[in-house]
Order: sequence, then structure tokens, then C-alpha cells
Amino acid sequence: MNDIRGLLRGDKRVIARTISDVEDDVAERLLEKIFPHTGGAYHIGITGPPGAGKSTLVNAIALQLVARKKKIGIIAVDPSSPFSGGALLGDRVRMNDLALNNRVFIRSMASRGSLGGLARTTKDVALVLDAAGMDYILIETIGVGQVELDIAQVCDTTVVVLVPESGDSIQAMKAGLLEIADVMVVNKGDREGSERLVTELKFAFEMREQKLEWPYPVLETVATEGEGINDLLSAIESHAGYLTKTGRLERERKAKLMLRVHELVELKIRSHLMENVLRKDDLTKLADSMYRRELNPYRVADRITKKIVKGGR
Amino acid sequence: MNDIRGLLRGDKRVIARTISDVEDDVAERLLEKIFPHTGGAYHIGITGPPGAGKSTLVNAIALQLVARKKKIGIIAVDPSSPFSGGALLGDRVRMNDLALNNRVFIRSMASRGSLGGLARTTKDVALVLDAAGMDYILIETIGVGQVELDIAQVCDTTVVVLVPESGDSIQAMKAGLLEIADVMVVNKGDREGSERLVTELKFAFEMREQKLEWPYPVLETVATEGEGINDLLSAIESHAGYLTKTGRLERERKAKLMLRVHELVELKIRSHLMENVLRKDDLTKLADSMYRRELNPYRVADRITKKIVKGGR
Repeated sequence: MNDIRGLLRGDKRVIARTISDVEDDVAERLLEKIFPHTGGAYHIGITGPPGAGKSTLVNAIALQLVARKKKIGIIAVDPSSPFSGGALLGDRVRMNDLALNNRVFIRSMASRGSLGGLARTTKDVALVLDAAGMDYILIETIGVGQVELDIAQVCDTTVVVLVPESGDSIQAMKAGLLEIADVMVVNKGDREGSERLVTELKFAFEMREQKLEWPYPVLETVATEGEGINDLLSAIESHAGYLTKTGRLERERKAKLMLRVHELVELKIRSHLMENVLRKDDLTKLADSMYRRELNPYRVADRITKKIVKGGR
Repeated sequence: MNDIRGLLRGDKRVIARTISDVEDDVAERLLEKIFPHTGGAYHIGITGPPGAGKSTLVNAIALQLVARKKKIGIIAVDPSSPFSGGALLGDRVRMNDLALNNRVFIRSMASRGSLGGLARTTKDVALVLDAAGMDYILIETIGVGQVELDIAQVCDTTVVVLVPESGDSIQAMKAGLLEIADVMVVNKGDREGSERLVTELKFAFEMREQKLEWPYPVLETVATEGEGINDLLSAIESHAGYLTKTGRLERERKAKLMLRVHELVELKIRSHLMENVLRKDDLTKLADSMYRRELNPYRVADRITKKIVKGGR
């Protein structure tokens, strides 16, 4: 119980300890206790290809929010992020300045283990930061190829960052990234090609068939100089306002909670399956029988399912 | 029972009808009956980035195997494959020639629905072709970003195809593709840069830490001209021989059967969950309670799990 009080007060050491417990998967009861104190933080996702300047943007946003006396939690799922110690020295020093700020808590997530594992842990860590009284939680992920974490499943507003020089290889990704973007940022907007990229992106948004209740802004920033960050924050605030006014924020957060339940049920059933139902010896025997075609996988799956599921067919 | 006899005889119309049933997910009993007649086909996966010439390579391999009086099943999971009607007219005509051959059965898989769905159906379709007496089953998939189907989970030998001009964007993928490759092909080996790519790939293979019991060949082909196809088939045969001799083929096929059982159990539990346990009204109420923080997702997941799992914690 001391832990919870310290956490709710926003004690950095308690936050760090709680997150470690969450990552070690020993904190489910604690998460249950924490849960009633969550729901206050606004979740912003920052995603885009490597080299788009996501971390610099997160840094700039956090500095602005600190100046407005807000409390900020940062979760970096990006392995190349300076927040995870994966970038240039200069970057890292700058991030450390931010880390020392009393209003900021930074956590980088190692992308170890399974995809499902990372997504689940990230959601739990976000809950811890939410309970610790953060006004904003910024989540940085790479948006390439296998998206390790479906950021739109966690965040209220998703910001997609691109750079003019991303070039052709990025074209293919745009479609997928456009779909999850609530706000689009062309970073390093002082470089050649940025105007053209902005035009292309605006055009792409207009081509989308769905009714554009929300105008999907495309903004330019120079994150290293802090340029355009105020406009970006205004766009995020507008989006939050739009979600609240239309009731979408509540609907989407409820849907995310049910998705969470589904994931947890599947995880629980899977671990039950592994620990209690499927013993190694039996598995070897079953595999041998199937290999000899004496049994078939459909029948075996049926038997196992009936063994564990009440009233299972 | 007539169906099974026709299928085992390799009757093309019966094969097509059976596959349709499998795709509509109404054929589990049939698949159980078919299963004892499977295990005879050798599964070859062909994967690589778009534009690498995978379909042309599959075409060339199939023509060679037909010349050797073998029966071949082709499954194209690649949506851009001419086998799925997704390419140039010239390609499609060529493929149609192949499709008319009595020893060849071609099926393209629409990439509709969920990832799990596609992977499951592809495995079932491969079983049908196996039972229909195919000597070889060639499975073509795109190996980019989100791999829609983990081809190594289905195939005995995985061939990864690259082209010299793939360029930088491919560099990043190489690591992932190298890991699943048993045989590496540089297609369009007559173009500039092919020698360099071969050297790079050989070097990359040598850098792998695992003991190289199998020498991981890197071959050059010009699939449009049929060049290098005999060498490729020899490499695949060598790999099959290596797998058989070392007992790996049996071990891996057993592991694949158990993986199949796991997938089927999870699918069965998931559909049981959706159909019988979670009613829409209850879900809405639960979501409302969680949103108001009266309930938490961990507790809800626990309750649902206990409801369906025998002896569940």
C-alpha cells in the first residue's frame, strides 16, 4: 500500500520500481489497485521511419509541455531512440537534461521477447505513468515494416512524422502510416522537398473516402530548432477537443479496454495451456503419432480444447 | 467418400472444390480424412521482395519438374503474383500454359481477412494438394515488412530471391530474410551489381554464428531465360537430402505438426470465446464499468477465463 501512495504522489523511484515489477510480470494485483487511479492522462503516439527525428520531436514537445507546468511521461519503444541510449552522444545528453526534470519521467522499453509481450508491457507501463499523475504520456515507436506495437491501440492522438528525404522507399509505407495518423508532421521542414511532401500528404488525406469530420492537419516542424512545435501542440489539442466533443474519446477508450480484456484472456488461456495441459512427454507422443499419421492435428486440437474449455465442443 | 477418392486420384475439379470448402472453413472433417494420405509432398517456399521475379522463378522451377514427370502444386500467397492475376498480360499467359498442364495445379490465395486466417488456410490448402499426390508443393509469398505467412513454418526448404537492383532499402531486410533462407538466389544475375550482391550474401552467411552443417548456397539465376534453374533444383535436392540424412526433416515436421495443434487450439478457444461466452450486451456493460473505473481489465479477464477454462486460476 505504501507503494501505491508513493506512486500516486508521483515519486520517481517508486514509479521506476513499479515499472520494473510490471516488466517482470509480477504486478497484476498491483495493476488492479492502480487501475482506479488511471484515465487522467492524455496519450500521444509519435511514430515514423528511422531518421525522421521522432526523438527530437518528443524532446521538443516535452520541453514545451514542461514550460506549461504539465507532467509528462515518455515511453520509447524505438530501439534506436536516444531515450533508450541508442543514438548519438549529443542527443543523449540533451535527453538526460529532460530526464532530470522533476515533471518528466522517461522509460525506454527493450524490444525483447515476443511481439505480444512488448505490446502488453507497454500498455501496463502506460497505466503506471497514468496513475502517477502524468498529464501527458508520449509514446515513441518506429513505424516501419513489422510495427512492434500498434500505437493506435494505445494512444488518443497518433502523430506520424516523415522527412522530405525519406524518398521512394517511404512511398510504400505512406498508405499504412496515413491510416493511423491523426496529425501528420513533415519534420526538417527547412530541407528541400518538404513543400512537395506536404502537398502530397494533403492530397493523400483528401483522397481518403471516409468523411473528414476531423481535418487531418499536415504540419511542418524543425524539431532541432523547436520550430512548429507550438502549432503541433495546438493541433493535438484540437484533436483532443474533437474527440471529446463528438464522444469518440469515450467510445474509443472503452473499445481499447475491451481489446485489453481480450488480450489478457488469450494470454491467460495460453499460459494455462502451456503450464497445466500440455506436458512435454505427451506432446512428444502426440507428435510421433501425428507424424505416423495415426492421429491428425484437428482431432488432437479438439481433444485438448475439450480438456480445458468448459462446455467446449 | 467419393470426394476423397477423387482427390486422392488427383482429379483437378475435386481438388478445386475441396480447396474452396477449406477456404470457407467448412472442411474440418474432410481434412481429418485427408490427413492420413499426406506427408508425401516436399514443400518448397519461394520468398523475396516485390519485383525479384519470384513468380517467374516458380514458373521455371515448375516447368523443369514437369519435364521430370513430377506432379506440382503451386500456392501463390503473393497478391502481386501473376498466378493471382496480379501482373502483366504476358506473364499471365505464360502461367496459364502451366495451369493447363495435367501435372500442375495452381491456387492463388486472396489475402483477405486476418493474418492468422491466411496462414491457417494456406496450411490446409497445402494438405489438400499433398493428399492429391503432388510430389512438390511450391509456395510463393512476399517477404517484406509484415510477412503475411511465416513461410518457414510450412516449407521444408525456403528459397529467398533477391535482385541486384533491390538497392539500399533491401539491406535492412536482408538479416530477416537470411535467417529463413536455406537457399539464396540472386535472380536477374545478368544485371549489374549481381556479383557484388552474391559476394555480400555469401559473406553474410559466413558471419552467422551457428555451425554451418548446411553450406547455405548462394546461386545466380536468370529466371526469364531458365538459366540456373537446374543448379537451383540440385541445391534444393541437396538440402532435402541433408534434412533427411540428419533426421532434421522428421524433427522439423513433427514440430510443425505441434505448432499446428497449438494454432488450432487457440482458434477453437477464440471462437468459443466469441460465440458462447462474450455476449454483446455484457461486453457493453463491462466496458462501461471499466471506463468508470468500477472494474479493471485484469479482474474482468480473470472472470472470463475462469468461466471458460476448466480448473482455471
